Amino acid sequence: MTSLRHQATARPSTKGRAVARTQTLLQGENGIGTVRKTTLPGGLRVVTETLPSVRSATFGIWAHVGSRDETPALGGATHYLEHLLFKGTGRRSALDISAAIDAVGGEMNAFTAKEYTCYYARVLDTDLPLAIDVVCDMLTGSLIEPADVDAERGVILEEIAMTEDDPGDCVHDLFAHTMFGDTPLGRPVLGTEDTVNALTADRVRRFYRKHYDPTHLVVAAAGNVDHAKVVRLVRRAFDRAGALERTDAVPVGPRDGTRTIRTAGRVELLGRKTEQAHVVLGMPGIARTDDRRWALGVLNTALGGGMSSRLFQEVREKRGLAYSVYSYTSSFADCGLFGVYAGCRPSQVHDVLRICRDELDQVAQHGLSDEELRRAIGQLSGSTVLGLEDTGALMNRIGKSELCWGEQMSVDDMLARIAAVTPDEVREVAAEVLGRRPSLSVIGPLKDKQAARLHEAVS
Amino acid sequence: MTSLRHQATARPSTKGRAVARTQTLLQGENGIGTVRKTTLPGGLRVVTETLPSVRSATFGIWAHVGSRDETPALGGATHYLEHLLFKGTGRRSALDISAAIDAVGGEMNAFTAKEYTCYYARVLDTDLPLAIDVVCDMLTGSLIEPADVDAERGVILEEIAMTEDDPGDCVHDLFAHTMFGDTPLGRPVLGTEDTVNALTADRVRRFYRKHYDPTHLVVAAAGNVDHAKVVRLVRRAFDRAGALERTDAVPVGPRDGTRTIRTAGRVELLGRKTEQAHVVLGMPGIARTDDRRWALGVLNTALGGGMSSRLFQEVREKRGLAYSVYSYTSSFADCGLFGVYAGCRPSQVHDVLRICRDELDQVAQHGLSDEELRRAIGQLSGSTVLGLEDTGALMNRIGKSELCWGEQMSVDDMLARIAAVTPDEVREVAAEVLGRRPSLSVIGPLKDKQAARLHEAVS
Repeated sequence: MTSLRHQATARPSTKGRAVARTQTLLQGENGIGTVRKTTLPGGLRVVTETLPSVRSATFGIWAHVGSRDETPALGGATHYLEHLLFKGTGRRSALDISAAIDAVGGEMNAFTAKEYTCYYARVLDTDLPLAIDVVCDMLTGSLIEPADVDAERGVILEEIAMTEDDPGDCVHDLFAHTMFGDTPLGRPVLGTEDTVNALTADRVRRFYRKHYDPTHLVVAAAGNVDHAKVVRLVRRAFDRAGALERTDAVPVGPRDGTRTIRTAGRVELLGRKTEQAHVVLGMPGIARTDDRRWALGVLNTALGGGMSSRLFQEVREKRGLAYSVYSYTSSFADCGLFGVYAGCRPSQVHDVLRICRDELDQVAQHGLSDEELRRAIGQLSGSTVLGLEDTGALMNRIGKSELCWGEQMSVDDMLARIAAVTPDEVREVAAEVLGRRPSLSVIGPLKDKQAARLHEAVS
Repeated sequence: MTSLRHQATARPSTKGRAVARTQTLLQGENGIGTVRKTTLPGGLRVVTETLPSVRSATFGIWAHVGSRDETPALGGATHYLEHLLFKGTGRRSALDISAAIDAVGGEMNAFTAKEYTCYYARVLDTDLPLAIDVVCDMLTGSLIEPADVDAERGVILEEIAMTEDDPGDCVHDLFAHTMFGDTPLGRPVLGTEDTVNALTADRVRRFYRKHYDPTHLVVAAAGNVDHAKVVRLVRRAFDRAGALERTDAVPVGPRDGTRTIRTAGRVELLGRKTEQAHVVLGMPGIARTDDRRWALGVLNTALGGGMSSRLFQEVREKRGLAYSVYSYTSSFADCGLFGVYAGCRPSQVHDVLRICRDELDQVAQHGLSDEELRRAIGQLSGSTVLGLEDTGALMNRIGKSELCWGEQMSVDDMLARIAAVTPDEVREVAAEVLGRRPSLSVIGPLKDKQAARLHEAVS
């Protein structure tokens, strides 16, 4: 990211301990928060965004580990571990953890992705010290007892079964498999019934020790928060666990990688007795740090990002062929995906795929109209600002930025970058990304003859 | 609701038009908004909540019509109409409507329930006049052309198919059928393939004329909004459509009804080849205006409202039998439901039902512990405040209050009412509601022997 304002402020060491360094990264104004960062001894980063006009705060801890870091035998270990961190520490039982946050009406949860894991609690600002204490305790003091591992195995198998029962969700896992095959990025975050059944407390505990070192964590808080106070409380909690003792420890930098996707023209069909056929048609996209992401964001918005987008208009508004149809991008350290989802009657799947493919080809060849570009820039700008009104979204933004980019970008700079996207930039990224030969994933009750025709959409 | 502060302020008539009457219903402070109401000629109510610390605004129009108002032949008409209002007016095509809101990054949508329908747009505060113009135009100037009705029929049939493919959603429709049978409250909001196929443009247009009279509408806006300006813009938009001419028109009051649910011990099973069995075990609850709703809210929270709740602890945390398990209440003008949902392996369905039934029985007999009561009150209070941080939630609260209760309640009064819930109140409502004989709805691949045993859970 670009255009950061670094303003280092010295912070005196207290009680002879190692010095923590605090920087003001972004100066807030007009309802936009001030972003500050402190790196504690032990290599623990703490970023906050202070927005005094709200009454709530969201506190989160991001771990630099995702399903991408699993060997085949450890499939689902990152997500399993995420569940186990709620099961108890030396100081708290599972009930103590949930009761503490429930008692103040807070919302506590976690999510595991392919490249990171995040634990968070959203509470009233007055309850922030409690949230910090509980979440830090979970991250630093988890017991991972065999009995808890066994009880939670059932929960995770139910979660896998629940996902299987939602084909509109499940088809995205299938698409990852279609594009990445049997590789870390292609395997499901939840693991499979077999890999989850094979995981033991010992293995998960080793995984925990390896990946939850303070140098691999980013602490993020946003809302009506005081940076110095957050740092003090986090430091106390991690100190109590003896986790900040390596004073020479250095935070790990953003993830890199060398993955290049060459998948093209692949078709995967999962036969299911569903009412709709759920399809994802897509191709390789771009990496998270790729400068073309602004142009691709505008392109994605115009193509399938709203009710006025091409795909919505052509597939739903004009022809009534689907209820849900949209495009999306997902990106990783070194690669990415561009995809179009639609859910439609099995008998209409070829029409829908033909229309989607035609639109992708059209835009690959001709880019967007001036009117589409203007509208997509407006849409992306407005939704960016509207999307940052709750403290959870703010926490996600600064935490993920620190972990994945190692820097922060101001909202104004983001808006300026979106507004500066040119027709040429869009045409170039459209020609490159949408010009790639697509692949296709389908879940539904397609008959042999219909299934045989799926290849037409990716030829 | 209780404890409203009415503070009528005279408002001079302009240009000889009929006088609009404005009241300040709730005085804001400490991050809580000021609520004002104006009743325009034509019987159109406008309520706003002004919260100057935010940068966004949500504008909505609530219609006093839901699937409950449909005859069997009109099944799904309310929801069909909701879709058609996005298809165009005398001034705007469907694309004009969506492009207007997309261009500013706004979020526009609508939802249809059994007793009301709501259309809304969330935008940056500077774009509020645009949102008002578009949404008012949709509500007052919809064309409902036969060609649009036909194209949208396909979309709605896809929406029905999509819902069918999500058994965790679908089981709630089944539960309404189990409890209410083939009555307006028991039929699905979306209608069925047959009723949707039978609806014509003429029928839907008649339904529109009958139910979208200004006396049946409530306009609500929340966020960084100026009440007088909102009233002026709404008046102009409705005037343009000639919709405010009946100066003696009086707004319709909250809905009433005389429905009493006597369903008990009924079991409905929908066989499906899903991975999980999706179950709802429940009984008649209480009406929306019932004073016991505060005690039932606390009870519901303690029983199945969070990770520390009894059902979560017993079913998931201790035994790992489900990923998703929760209780909920739903209420209508004259009746209500209390239900427990769980998704689990078909082989475990009897264990899960036995545990849920045991917990319901336990609480019906003994109420909650002091610790549970204290925690549930804290949880409900905190989540009430946290739930009102975005302008969409504020708009929903004031709009629904005006339509369904005909009055507004301050957040402080709500918190006071929650805090005042006593162990005796909880015991009484628990004995009455949870003491009723439950009914059961199940979607899943249960074999004959398992299906036969379902009656045990409701005996």
